[in-house]
Amino acid sequence: MDQTMTDTVFYAELPWPEVEARIAAGAPVFLPLGATEQHGRHMALNVDVVLPTAVAARAAAEVGGLVLPTLAYGNRSQPKTGGGPGFPGTVNLTAQTFALIVRDVICDLFRQKVRKIVTVNGHYENIGPTIEGIELALDAIGRDRTDGLVILRVDHWDMVQPETLERIFPDGYPGIELEHASVIETSMMMALRPELVDLTKAAHDGPAAFLPYDRYPKPCAEVPPSGVLSLTEGSSAEKGEWLLADCTAGIIAAVAREFN
Amino acid sequence: MDQTMTDTVFYAELPWPEVEARIAAGAPVFLPLGATEQHGRHMALNVDVVLPTAVAARAAAEVGGLVLPTLAYGNRSQPKTGGGPGFPGTVNLTAQTFALIVRDVICDLFRQKVRKIVTVNGHYENIGPTIEGIELALDAIGRDRTDGLVILRVDHWDMVQPETLERIFPDGYPGIELEHASVIETSMMMALRPELVDLTKAAHDGPAAFLPYDRYPKPCAEVPPSGVLSLTEGSSAEKGEWLLADCTAGIIAAVAREFN
Amino acid sequence: MDQTMTDTVFYAELPWPEVEARIAAGAPVFLPLGATEQHGRHMALNVDVVLPTAVAARAAAEVGGLVLPTLAYGNRSQPKTGGGPGFPGTVNLTAQTFALIVRDVICDLFRQKVRKIVTVNGHYENIGPTIEGIELALDAIGRDRTDGLVILRVDHWDMVQPETLERIFPDGYPGIELEHASVIETSMMMALRPELVDLTKAAHDGPAAFLPYDRYPKPCAEVPPSGVLSLTEGSSAEKGEWLLADCTAGIIAAVAREFN
Amino acid sequence: MDQTMTDTVFYAELPWPEVEARIAAGAPVFLPLGATEQHGRHMALNVDVVLPTAVAARAAAEVGGLVLPTLAYGNRSQPKTGGGPGFPGTVNLTAQTFALIVRDVICDLFRQKVRKIVTVNGHYENIGPTIEGIELALDAIGRDRTDGLVILRVDHWDMVQPETLERIFPDGYPGIELEHASVIETSMMMALRPELVDLTKAAHDGPAAFLPYDRYPKPCAEVPPSGVLSLTEGSSAEKGEWLLADCTAGIIAAVAREFN
Amino acid sequence: MDQTMTDTVFYAELPWPEVEARIAAGAPVFLPLGATEQHGRHMALNVDVVLPTAVAARAAAEVGGLVLPTLAYGNRSQPKTGGGPGFPGTVNLTAQTFALIVRDVICDLFRQKVRKIVTVNGHYENIGPTIEGIELALDAIGRDRTDGLVILRVDHWDMVQPETLERIFPDGYPGIELEHASVIETSMMMALRPELVDLTKAAHDGPAAFLPYDRYPKPCAEVPPSGVLSLTEGSSAEKGEWLLADCTAGIIAAVAREFN
Amino acid sequence: MDQTMTDTVFYAELPWPEVEARIAAGAPVFLPLGATEQHGRHMALNVDVVLPTAVAARAAAEVGGLVLPTLAYGNRSQPKTGGGPGFPGTVNLTAQTFALIVRDVICDLFRQKVRKIVTVNGHYENIGPTIEGIELALDAIGRDRTDGLVILRVDHWDMVQPETLERIFPDGYPGIELEHASVIETSMMMALRPELVDLTKAAHDGPAAFLPYDRYPKPCAEVPPSGVLSLTEGSSAEKGEWLLADCTAGIIAAVAREFN
Repeated sequence: MDQTMTDTVFYAELPWPEVEARIAAGAPVFLPLGATEQHGRHMALNVDVVLPTAVAARAAAEVGGLVLPTLAYGNRSQPKTGGGPGFPGTVNLTAQTFALIVRDVICDLFRQKVRKIVTVNGHYENIGPTIEGIELALDAIGRDRTDGLVILRVDHWDMVQPETLERIFPDGYPGIELEHASVIETSMMMALRPELVDLTKAAHDGPAAFLPYDRYPKPCAEVPPSGVLSLTEGSSAEKGEWLLADCTAGIIAAVAREFN
Repeated sequence: MDQTMTDTVFYAELPWPEVEARIAAGAPVFLPLGATEQHGRHMALNVDVVLPTAVAARAAAEVGGLVLPTLAYGNRSQPKTGGGPGFPGTVNLTAQTFALIVRDVICDLFRQKVRKIVTVNGHYENIGPTIEGIELALDAIGRDRTDGLVILRVDHWDMVQPETLERIFPDGYPGIELEHASVIETSMMMALRPELVDLTKAAHDGPAAFLPYDRYPKPCAEVPPSGVLSLTEGSSAEKGEWLLADCTAGIIAAVAREFN
Repeated sequence: MDQTMTDTVFYAELPWPEVEARIAAGAPVFLPLGATEQHGRHMALNVDVVLPTAVAARAAAEVGGLVLPTLAYGNRSQPKTGGGPGFPGTVNLTAQTFALIVRDVICDLFRQKVRKIVTVNGHYENIGPTIEGIELALDAIGRDRTDGLVILRVDHWDMVQPETLERIFPDGYPGIELEHASVIETSMMMALRPELVDLTKAAHDGPAAFLPYDRYPKPCAEVPPSGVLSLTEGSSAEKGEWLLADCTAGIIAAVAREFN
Repeated sequence: MDQTMTDTVFYAELPWPEVEARIAAGAPVFLPLGATEQHGRHMALNVDVVLPTAVAARAAAEVGGLVLPTLAYGNRSQPKTGGGPGFPGTVNLTAQTFALIVRDVICDLFRQKVRKIVTVNGHYENIGPTIEGIELALDAIGRDRTDGLVILRVDHWDMVQPETLERIFPDGYPGIELEHASVIETSMMMALRPELVDLTKAAHDGPAAFLPYDRYPKPCAEVPPSGVLSLTEGSSAEKGEWLLADCTAGIIAAVAREFN
Repeated sequence: MDQTMTDTVFYAELPWPEVEARIAAGAPVFLPLGATEQHGRHMALNVDVVLPTAVAARAAAEVGGLVLPTLAYGNRSQPKTGGGPGFPGTVNLTAQTFALIVRDVICDLFRQKVRKIVTVNGHYENIGPTIEGIELALDAIGRDRTDGLVILRVDHWDMVQPETLERIFPDGYPGIELEHASVIETSMMMALRPELVDLTKAAHDGPAAFLPYDRYPKPCAEVPPSGVLSLTEGSSAEKGEWLLADCTAGIIAAVAREFN
Repeated sequence: MDQTMTDTVFYAELPWPEVEARIAAGAPVFLPLGATEQHGRHMALNVDVVLPTAVAARAAAEVGGLVLPTLAYGNRSQPKTGGGPGFPGTVNLTAQTFALIVRDVICDLFRQKVRKIVTVNGHYENIGPTIEGIELALDAIGRDRTDGLVILRVDHWDMVQPETLERIFPDGYPGIELEHASVIETSMMMALRPELVDLTKAAHDGPAAFLPYDRYPKPCAEVPPSGVLSLTEGSSAEKGEWLLADCTAGIIAAVAREFN
């Protein structure tokens, strides 16, 4: 175990006595929540894992935090926000399973005296079952026995500043839901894992124009064939760094404000 | 997306069209099942993630397979096989949650036409809920509608040849249950992630001498303070490679025998 | 049973032979999904029941449909979209319970040969568990045995036309999430149940300015004390009728497009 | 919000500050539990909703109580007590789903300081899962932390006095189980919602003569084709008022006895 | 394995080839459902196990059936039908757990080709969750794939003939619910297991006079202190044999009628 | 109720006042956990019921304990440890159902003041779900409110002394997993229920030589056709008594060590 090992922010790369010591010293614990989901022909399936892990790691490095292993399986991908079950490659959990994972992890962290938890989410469909999992954990712990526990629930895209969106989308921001596999996610991946992006494969078949309702079991057919809901043109690693900087700063600010 | 991207065996590092193509070509899909669990003062908490991931990746490279993201959270660690809930750092799922994850992933792979699945397990306590999850998936799919689905369930340590154990333990093999954080796991980690092992921190306070029953809620106190159930002396990267070679060969043989 | 009885669109106000006959004739069945949730000092707790019930009834009357009893209990109210658990009066179901209700009702409708179902939702937090419930129902029915079943999932606010929003919000639409208990809902209630609205009680303490994350167990304190997330000024029954007309027309169009 | 609004006993027709004030003043909260179930050719499907809602409202008006929205979906209808799943129109919940609804509502009422709860049931098959839901709620709250909570569980028919049954059935009371859609329910509906009753459609094909066991999956065929288990002859609004008076008085007496 | 072994009707006292052969020959399989519940000061806690086991065994001997191990734990005992949770000794399962056991056993019997199942129940509170379990099993099997499966659900007391009740209760039958631990159950125990009955310990403190509602968490206090809901006077082994004869004959008749 | 009744160690053969008195006097309560599972052509299906019941009864007689009714249905039989689902006769519960039974029984014992519980298991596959059930019970009770509760979890075969195994297997012990239906279980049955053993039916087709992985849905075919995993030769009632003596002594020692 060289210096790298004890320097890392990654919880699971430490031996137990080091984790114990950092928690005792008040380290906030970050739980990145991802998915294995199609992200267009030009990106790997792990976008929703890479982004929240990176954001959490950058923030943790600044605030003395620890980053738990990222949950790599997300709640059911939906057509309007991620392409949906029709795309090969996407692997979905049910909402109940996802919520139980969040519940179990929080309960077990609480048991070992962690009182500062930040979930950092990278997959839109995880929002609801993350809330359910947190509430189930609070029920299981007992709401009158939480002993100072504070849980912050962050979706990384909500940390992006309006100014940054204006710089990236001078013609107007299409909204986060349509951003699936589009400029924001592509740029962040180019900054973090450029070898997992190949813009020459981008299909330019968007943006999606959705009907104002959902259809089951066969979804309405408006998802562009590529799986990109909006556009990839204009993505760049530089823009990715702007976005990462916002996310990191936003989480640091939240930690400073709430964990006192 | 350079050549690296399309060469990888890691499912989530590929874009969806490549995954679709490989599955259509008959690629077996490996699901590594791990844990975040104490492994002594001398190793990181991710031993049960690193080992099955590496074994699965080596085997997949040989047989044209794909490796799903490793499940990094395992079923409740028990004192006699992993140190148990008393150790800081370990993060446990309930058996029900773990089984539901396995069920959901298998059902969703089946939905997208995967018919060859190999679970590669690195955490003793996962065995039971993996079986439960597989059976629940078969119930959900319908046992008369599995359409050629075959699932192999591998615990990597069962792939080690008796000859190898004799070479490693010339004085006799203590048994896999006591091997937690001991020579086998330490050697394999030294071969794969030496920077996450520091033998100078090994405590030499074992082996455990367990009472012949379990006690709840406070477990019997025979786990050595370090969390190492047996011994670490004699661990080496070379022995680790012997073990990895056995595991890889065993899985390749199983795939050849069963997926025809 | 006079003429009124057999004229009604309300499923539960009919005797079973009439329901049987209408289903056999192809009547789509509407399931309104509501909540019992605070909607400011100026409105009753049943806003999320009244609105989707009325929208469903108007649409059903046009398309020969039937309207099931409205589910009056919704998934956990959240601070940013409904005031959250801190407000007296709100009664919450867990996401799992809500999803199971949706699953059970759909499965039982399917059993009695209903093949055209429209869920009409009035409570933002119900979206996720409604999707989960629909998917669980499809799993239970068997995805290869759905026999023509089509389920449309409608949130009534998504049926409002951009032109209508521009007429109502000439200074810009604040977005549906902030619309809780605000102009849209208040206007629709004034059109439908004016006796349950008292604008003199409106507090004008908004709009909410939310932090970009959630906090548990004690939510961030930015919900205005009244529970109105945006504004009530300018609400009117006339605007309510514009909105109702859009919702009704939108559902009629969806039914015409999808149920052939 | 005119005087009607603040006079009502219906919880969901009040704004949250009024609910808060009444609960603080000690108002008991009534939860009517119904079903959507066949009730013969001569009555609407909502009998089990109308009756407990009316009984609860009359009692609440007398004791200063509040009436929650009625749960309009009941536990699985059985042949011997409601016609069973063979009848079109009936919509069933599983026992587990029904119990979870009861659990969730009670837990959430407890959270907002309600300590006096009365469930008023109108559907025989709800009895078991209501008990289960109440017990699950007590488990979730913690049996040593109920802080004065008292829950009364009422089946409205048990409140009818023997003298009343003798007046209505001078030739002998056939028992509540056979009373499904028969004189008692028909009379009460005639008193409350005469427009939902059409005695000219009554089939006079009963009473049922059941075998002394149940048969699955296809039930024994002794349910009369109309769905009326006993008789409708002699039903009248006057008798309905006798029954309603007993039910109301019985609940008032229970509230007086238990909530001190 | 002597002749006794292969003569027995008890499924679990046979080796697997004999069970396989009998099922192949069409043997109906009986599942007795019991409870461990107080039955007064004069009887053991196993009354609800002994009675349905004996009834099932007598019937099975006549019809060539097999008797599975009796489930010795029942659904939550209630004050009005069994004394309730206030009595020491009673051990309760939740309704959900009980239903899942019934589901699992039926599904597994179906898997091994059993198509004739009779549940024989001895505990009033088991009725609802037995129905739930049967329905869950049918859902799991698939209602269109039951392949001739027929399940009969018997409560042994419903098999008693009116004439027998008149002989036993010349002054009028108090009804089965009040019969808990009273003349019927006591007489049957005296016939079957006289060593588990001691009438000198009977307390004669009944019958119970229940209020017409339930109260939680502390039940209404009308259960007689002994736990006997009605009376024990007049119990005799001879009467027990009359009752057992009726139960056996009733089940034989049901089997003959339904399993052709 | 003669002297036999009050002398028995079997909980369910006592009336409630006697159970109450013994618990108040500190009697440990034993819960035997069994299965209905094939045990070769030469033994009945109830081996896993008979053995833990007998062991628990002998130990209870020595320490003043009580023995609850044995759970006669076990968790899914697996090929490598019990023959698996392919054998007729075996009746399996899911792991979740089994765990919920254990949870419910422990919670209800705790409610009635039992603080000393010993589970005595006779079926290998029950180990995991018993642990899950115990942990779920502790969660439900509240880990900070267990009030001195101690639960011992015993697998009877772990109580056998090495010396005894050497006496029985002078050529080497094949290991407990292969012992299914073999010398240990056969000998114990010969000591306890000789009428349920017929060694002339033993097939001598073992021992099993398993592949080092599991295969689903159709298991690998290495289970010997008889269902005996190892050998039956050399079984005797005398050896059975040696084993029973060890098991009894081991439990008595555990009780003495832990329940003070």
